[in-house]
Amino acid sequence: MEIIEDTSSPWVSILDTQLPTAKVLTDAAARKAHGHDSWHLTCEPECVVVARTRADVETTLKFAHEHDLPVTARGGGVGYVGGCVPVQRGIALSLAEMTAIKEIHVGDAVAVVEPGVITADLQDAAQERGLFYPPDPASRKECSIGGNIATNAGGPRCLKYGVTRHYVLGLEVVLADGRVLQCGSRCHKNKTGFDLVGPFVGSEGMLGIVTEATLRLLPNPPARAMLSCSFPDFADAADAVQRILGSGYLPSALEISDKFTLQAAREHVGSALIPDGNAHLLVEIDGQAESVRSECAQLVAMLRTLDPVTLDSAVTEEDCERIWEIRRAFSYSLRATGLKKLNEDIVVPRGRLVDLAKFGEKLQADTGFQVASFGHAGDGNIHVNLMVPPEANRQSIDDALNRLFTQVLEWGGVISGEHGIGLAKQPWFHQALSPTNIDLHHTLKKALDPKGILNPGKFLG
Amino acid sequence: MEIIEDTSSPWVSILDTQLPTAKVLTDAAARKAHGHDSWHLTCEPECVVVARTRADVETTLKFAHEHDLPVTARGGGVGYVGGCVPVQRGIALSLAEMTAIKEIHVGDAVAVVEPGVITADLQDAAQERGLFYPPDPASRKECSIGGNIATNAGGPRCLKYGVTRHYVLGLEVVLADGRVLQCGSRCHKNKTGFDLVGPFVGSEGMLGIVTEATLRLLPNPPARAMLSCSFPDFADAADAVQRILGSGYLPSALEISDKFTLQAAREHVGSALIPDGNAHLLVEIDGQAESVRSECAQLVAMLRTLDPVTLDSAVTEEDCERIWEIRRAFSYSLRATGLKKLNEDIVVPRGRLVDLAKFGEKLQADTGFQVASFGHAGDGNIHVNLMVPPEANRQSIDDALNRLFTQVLEWGGVISGEHGIGLAKQPWFHQALSPTNIDLHHTLKKALDPKGILNPGKFLG
Repeated sequence: MEIIEDTSSPWVSILDTQLPTAKVLTDAAARKAHGHDSWHLTCEPECVVVARTRADVETTLKFAHEHDLPVTARGGGVGYVGGCVPVQRGIALSLAEMTAIKEIHVGDAVAVVEPGVITADLQDAAQERGLFYPPDPASRKECSIGGNIATNAGGPRCLKYGVTRHYVLGLEVVLADGRVLQCGSRCHKNKTGFDLVGPFVGSEGMLGIVTEATLRLLPNPPARAMLSCSFPDFADAADAVQRILGSGYLPSALEISDKFTLQAAREHVGSALIPDGNAHLLVEIDGQAESVRSECAQLVAMLRTLDPVTLDSAVTEEDCERIWEIRRAFSYSLRATGLKKLNEDIVVPRGRLVDLAKFGEKLQADTGFQVASFGHAGDGNIHVNLMVPPEANRQSIDDALNRLFTQVLEWGGVISGEHGIGLAKQPWFHQALSPTNIDLHHTLKKALDPKGILNPGKFLG
Repeated sequence: MEIIEDTSSPWVSILDTQLPTAKVLTDAAARKAHGHDSWHLTCEPECVVVARTRADVETTLKFAHEHDLPVTARGGGVGYVGGCVPVQRGIALSLAEMTAIKEIHVGDAVAVVEPGVITADLQDAAQERGLFYPPDPASRKECSIGGNIATNAGGPRCLKYGVTRHYVLGLEVVLADGRVLQCGSRCHKNKTGFDLVGPFVGSEGMLGIVTEATLRLLPNPPARAMLSCSFPDFADAADAVQRILGSGYLPSALEISDKFTLQAAREHVGSALIPDGNAHLLVEIDGQAESVRSECAQLVAMLRTLDPVTLDSAVTEEDCERIWEIRRAFSYSLRATGLKKLNEDIVVPRGRLVDLAKFGEKLQADTGFQVASFGHAGDGNIHVNLMVPPEANRQSIDDALNRLFTQVLEWGGVISGEHGIGLAKQPWFHQALSPTNIDLHHTLKKALDPKGILNPGKFLG
């Protein structure tokens, strides 16, 4: 890989002349703004290309391919793992201004969007037409569909509705050499040859750059109901998770939180909002109005038999939002502790929830770092937050993370459920996968990006 | 590709000595039995390897890779497109005797199975533990999970629950050179690197051979209800489909059928079972008992406003099965006409259902072949059956199919939703995809199977 140190490299102005519709930025502010995401590292690109059309992306990649220049694509820039940090500099290619919702077709139940569309904007537009785009990452008001595709984004509702991958029917992708690939279709089923859509979903900008996505939409469920239930102990809440699922309910969200998280939330937003107890479970069910009301009543009756500390239910929109406020308080309450919050989106097989909570306690006792766990109990995707004092040294943090990831992998868990590997989890990537698996990663990368220009320096080196 | 014409080729006995646990068969009956699926073409392999262990598959592929021998994997052998016909002979590798359900874990909600497990057997085993494996191809009592993965199998329930791909969490795959790849995990979410599971799902045995699959299971919905509703016209039934979905219902099945199909069923099984009318809609909803009862009543009220010819509903298991009998009668009733039934599993964007029915009428008028359409209305995956007299010549059949596929592609539809391309749809593969898309197919194939030994002679040549 050729690294050009001079930010006023002659290639920038040549590229600029080839891109009449894109913005090519080299000023310090633009380079800084496009040098990081929500992770701590910043590395400034040599220039920023803000694409407005597919042709801009084609031209940029053809140019970069010819001149061996690194290209790191970015959308909302709100990732958690440094996935869009241009660590080998070159071009930061922003898709953030390609924001057209080209089509929402009710009869076909599809949306056709550009990659820069904000996830919440798509959801709102779909809902206005009686349709539903389920994936709901916490950052849905800031993150873009392109970024969601790059990380195969999830969220609470993925328990019932599946992850981003399950909604991508078709893609237009500009390949590393600038060729344009149309793959998939606007049909809800497709078995024409290999699944070429799949490899690009979750590829963290390393296999191609999406310039258009055709997404599957569902009928919009007209109603929802919620339960808020707290318990003396995390194990009780985990038991409740298994009982709910074991009775044939598939909630649209099933969120668990631990003692430390609840305590931080109480301290920050007050005990009036945050229920008593040392573990909390939030349950959301959606569907037809009469169904969610009857199921909510049944779940209340079932949960009451488990001797909860508190049990509250909601069937109106206002009351449901009030219960969601509990869940939404967690992240900012943890940040308000003054400790640094390292959010690790590990996944364990669902049967390991209690083991994970116990391990968190032990890790806390051994390392002195407090551990706050909350997240998607239904699919085992728990956000384990290591709460680190500002003065903690990097080695002790890495040691604690190392213990966490090693244990998770021993249980058959995985080191990332939603955020991706990026830079943050790069040190554990080789531990997480077998040598043959890593080898296949390189095979796929080499096949699609032989010069290694797309988002270089990430988990494949 | 080396083609060895002599069925007693010396390599067969050498391979045999290397496979102490597998059966290596060369007798005429075995070669014939492993030379076809449900499509019309038979091509006998030089030998049949019936694998019992992963090691058998590894040994076979290492040997084949070294000696450039074609290997065509097969499971239940009930595909519709000749996908497992060993057209370049070599080795037919049967996974049909690898039938262990290694694990069904309730807490983790996963099943770990060998590829030869019959789909219905897995579903039954899951249900006994309160769990649910949704994909339900019509051949579920004969087809295997390995074959389901190879074709990314669907079925009626995929409208609500998604296709096979959405249930494959992890795979053990023997690669073309005999190396063993473990990819994915037993977690319900995973964003560790690229999605290496995806490329193998739907790859029709051309990228690797699955020897173990870890599958996601859902809570088993405790109840269901059904509606059977017939209309004067196909357009009325298609309109009802849009109204049901437009009201926020996501049925577990939404099956439509046309006049010709209904008439054939009436003639074969009698008018007592098959309702009057020229189009029929079957609706299944599943979930909690009280919910499905109330939703069923609401749907009855809604459908009644559309002036149906008949409208029947069912909330008991027995009555639900009675309604499914209508749907199950279609295939064998069409075969009982004495005409050859060419089942083309095309998909159209859902808004094109009425256009498709009109096109079917025109095709019938123009070609003289009767057209019977029925299938999964909710996702636009309609089985268009060309009913061909035994004396019809191949060219006229191909001309009719050509018109069908060309029209479907013009609408943005696809030529296969569930069955795959195999040999049957090979002539239309290049028409269905762009040159860049085909090129990417070759890139992926070459990366994973550089010698081209896995299922050669199919859609990639």
